[in-house]
Amino acid sequence: MLTIDKITQTVAEYARRLEAGDAAKIAELYAEDATVEDPAGSAVRKGRAAIAAFYSELDGLALTAELLTVRASGDTAAFHLRVITTTEEFVSSIEPIDVMTFDEHGRITSMRAIWSPADVVHHRRSSQ
Amino acid sequence: MLTIDKITQTVAEYARRLEAGDAAKIAELYAEDATVEDPAGSAVRKGRAAIAAFYSELDGLALTAELLTVRASGDTAAFHLRVITTTEEFVSSIEPIDVMTFDEHGRITSMRAIWSPADVVHHRRSSQ
Repeated sequence: MLTIDKITQTVAEYARRLEAGDAAKIAELYAEDATVEDPAGSAVRKGRAAIAAFYSELDGLALTAELLTVRASGDTAAFHLRVITTTEEFVSSIEPIDVMTFDEHGRITSMRAIWSPADVVHHRRSSQ
Repeated sequence: MLTIDKITQTVAEYARRLEAGDAAKIAELYAEDATVEDPAGSAVRKGRAAIAAFYSELDGLALTAELLTVRASGDTAAFHLRVITTTEEFVSSIEPIDVMTFDEHGRITSMRAIWSPADVVHHRRSSQ
């Protein structure tokens, strides 16, 4: 049975796996025929293979993922997430609100990330 | 055409009308056949009349509504909202994340409020 606790545990695990940057492990949290729309309004990626390909864009990035606020009810979670990526030149921060639905086994059936370019901040790193 | 600006303006107007406590005025922000699910997982209210009846539960409550975080992309907004209601005995605070979709005219086509009882805090007012 799906519970609020199971949903919030899966959201926390999602943030941990984002940080670990293993696309296949992230995709395992999704149901086989799940959909990802990031940002909402962009093309919908459907199925674990397409979802793993999407997250593989994170490969090799130094990334932190901090859950700022998590809410859950029914089959749905919404959470405010701060993702910071660091490259040689830039530190970039993006803070979407993500909305996920879950099946009865606690697998993610859909994810829509709500953010626009105004929610992304880039800082050039000072040369060292 | 629906724009991010139009969506965020409508969300701000929604918060203002919540504070004003006029259920009919809140319902006017919704499309005729819109749906409200508050909290997500509870019965879906469909149509402006049912939606106005839902918000009429706020009638006569002293209420403040503060938008903590607003995100928008595509046809969707997600926002973290703090609603504080004050009665003779209690001050109650609830901080859901609400998810709304919009039609091309900027009217709300669906609202799902993501919160659970753990997100509600009641304080007994000290006797005066």
